[in-house]
Amino acid sequence: MAVKTGNNTFVLNRPVFVRNTACIVGQKEKQGPLGRYFERSEKDDFDMDTWEQAEARFVGETYSSLLAGSPGVEENMIDCVLGGDLLNQCTASACGLKKSGRPYLGLFGACSTMAESLLIGSLLIDGGGAENVVCITSSNFCSAEKQFRFPLELGSQRAPNSQWTVTGSGAALLSSQGDGPQITAVTPGIICDYNVTDTNNMGASMAPAAASTILMHLGDLNRDFSYYDLVVTGDLGRVGHALCGDILKLHGVGAEEARHQDCGMMIFDPSQGTCAGGSGCGCSATVFAAYLYKQLKEKAVNRLLFVATGALMSPVSVKQGEPILGIAHAIAIENIGKGAPA
Amino acid sequence: MAVKTGNNTFVLNRPVFVRNTACIVGQKEKQGPLGRYFERSEKDDFDMDTWEQAEARFVGETYSSLLAGSPGVEENMIDCVLGGDLLNQCTASACGLKKSGRPYLGLFGACSTMAESLLIGSLLIDGGGAENVVCITSSNFCSAEKQFRFPLELGSQRAPNSQWTVTGSGAALLSSQGDGPQITAVTPGIICDYNVTDTNNMGASMAPAAASTILMHLGDLNRDFSYYDLVVTGDLGRVGHALCGDILKLHGVGAEEARHQDCGMMIFDPSQGTCAGGSGCGCSATVFAAYLYKQLKEKAVNRLLFVATGALMSPVSVKQGEPILGIAHAIAIENIGKGAPA
Repeated sequence: MAVKTGNNTFVLNRPVFVRNTACIVGQKEKQGPLGRYFERSEKDDFDMDTWEQAEARFVGETYSSLLAGSPGVEENMIDCVLGGDLLNQCTASACGLKKSGRPYLGLFGACSTMAESLLIGSLLIDGGGAENVVCITSSNFCSAEKQFRFPLELGSQRAPNSQWTVTGSGAALLSSQGDGPQITAVTPGIICDYNVTDTNNMGASMAPAAASTILMHLGDLNRDFSYYDLVVTGDLGRVGHALCGDILKLHGVGAEEARHQDCGMMIFDPSQGTCAGGSGCGCSATVFAAYLYKQLKEKAVNRLLFVATGALMSPVSVKQGEPILGIAHAIAIENIGKGAPA
Repeated sequence: MAVKTGNNTFVLNRPVFVRNTACIVGQKEKQGPLGRYFERSEKDDFDMDTWEQAEARFVGETYSSLLAGSPGVEENMIDCVLGGDLLNQCTASACGLKKSGRPYLGLFGACSTMAESLLIGSLLIDGGGAENVVCITSSNFCSAEKQFRFPLELGSQRAPNSQWTVTGSGAALLSSQGDGPQITAVTPGIICDYNVTDTNNMGASMAPAAASTILMHLGDLNRDFSYYDLVVTGDLGRVGHALCGDILKLHGVGAEEARHQDCGMMIFDPSQGTCAGGSGCGCSATVFAAYLYKQLKEKAVNRLLFVATGALMSPVSVKQGEPILGIAHAIAIENIGKGAPA
């Protein structure tokens, strides 16, 4: 049974292993700095007729690949699938998973969805009811541009603060059985409203949420930032990452550069023309599934705080003058089993 | 700790009380058959500039009203708020709850959201980590018509099979402490695809999901339909309700009329011009919060199976030829505490 600690953090008691991960990314992601960690890449359209169907295919094939790569876990052992995405009414997840035949719980956490699914999934397993839960999310540059910004055909100029939606789907299989990295504590985030209304600056809208959740997590557990080998925010990009660091500093939390990174900055190189960095549900999901999980498995990182961030907005809400709300959830993943360093 | 029973049902062990509910509906709902149970009604626009802001206000005020009506539970005792709605990127929930200051987990289950939130919320409490969880959702006739169908100004003729989106927000406070009705078992649903593509017939797309979840729930717990005083589906409307009854009968499950009802049929009278009945996340949420909860509290109903249903689709997915997927989650709520009938 999880124990609520401090204001908003749940410390897990039953082992919850990240048993396996899977991901498929697009071509641009494959060409980026993490390219060698992305085993499979596909074109943005994934040979489908529409961008939305392509995104659903990324989800469906990532789900299949996760199960195929998880010996000992048959599909009927999956207690539920937690999924969501950025498309209106989260259709990429529903369409992509419709053949799974497993109970489905849809989430909407914008780009924080990967952390939200890990949070709920780990608590369901810790609570004893579930043994195996799949967490999955996706985004697609083309479906996102079409829905949130401009038709691709316009070739619109991009603002330097803007971010580039990652094409890809990432998934994790959480399990009560296994070995390797375990989720040890989770901190669900609070909606932050700093009255940011610039849709070309999502980093600014999410940075206060990331900082707030990190501070809450560390405070609740009475931990220093240096407890973690790596604190990775979701997809703040360069602008949001710098703001997040500034806010942490204001609160007396020094974040060394190597210890404090951001998935949106890790996935693309500035030379790729991606402005402030990557974004989208698929950004933190694929960086986690391909790179961070491998770092944990290889014990290059033993204590990871994964803080995926989301901007809660729609084109309609922004046009009606609503601020872009930020949210971030924190997931502590540690090597604490046999073979882990003391 | 919940115990997985049968294929997909979780039986709860720790008491999870539905401690309180709250709702606000629109005028048409107030004029319907359940009008006297709806204590507060507002105009669809709730004195706001836009339908979307109105829907967010329904959410915000329902949340405030839930807390104000729950003595002994201060806002800082809420471990998390589970919310979601039908608007693109679920902005009604995020905007409506942005001042709550409590951890927020966004859900997207279309019109099944109320059941999905009760399901996750009850498992979080059963799992020991959470003590108090708010489950909340909403819909608004005008924001839904605008987003999913036609501009209201067109005055488009409605198909007889179509349903009328309920204006309103409903919420429940789940708690480990209290008395009264308890959530005893939950069955998360599987996505059903019967290749329904008619957006004027959501009932048909959701009926197989409702029947599948009911059959799964009864089978997993080895219960007859008659175990429950009332089995209420989410918002199938007249067409879907009849189809659901037919499917149940095909599987040898006889559903007496009085024991098998539908929120979409309960909330409106056919004379109100609402075609096949009500729909929207707010439909099952307000019927549950105002009417069903009262029936449980007054012991007119002692064993309720609440099966909210959702259609997983968007205007884009339908126009691209994707089928309308159905999902339904089942929540067993029973009077089992002191004073409950044997």
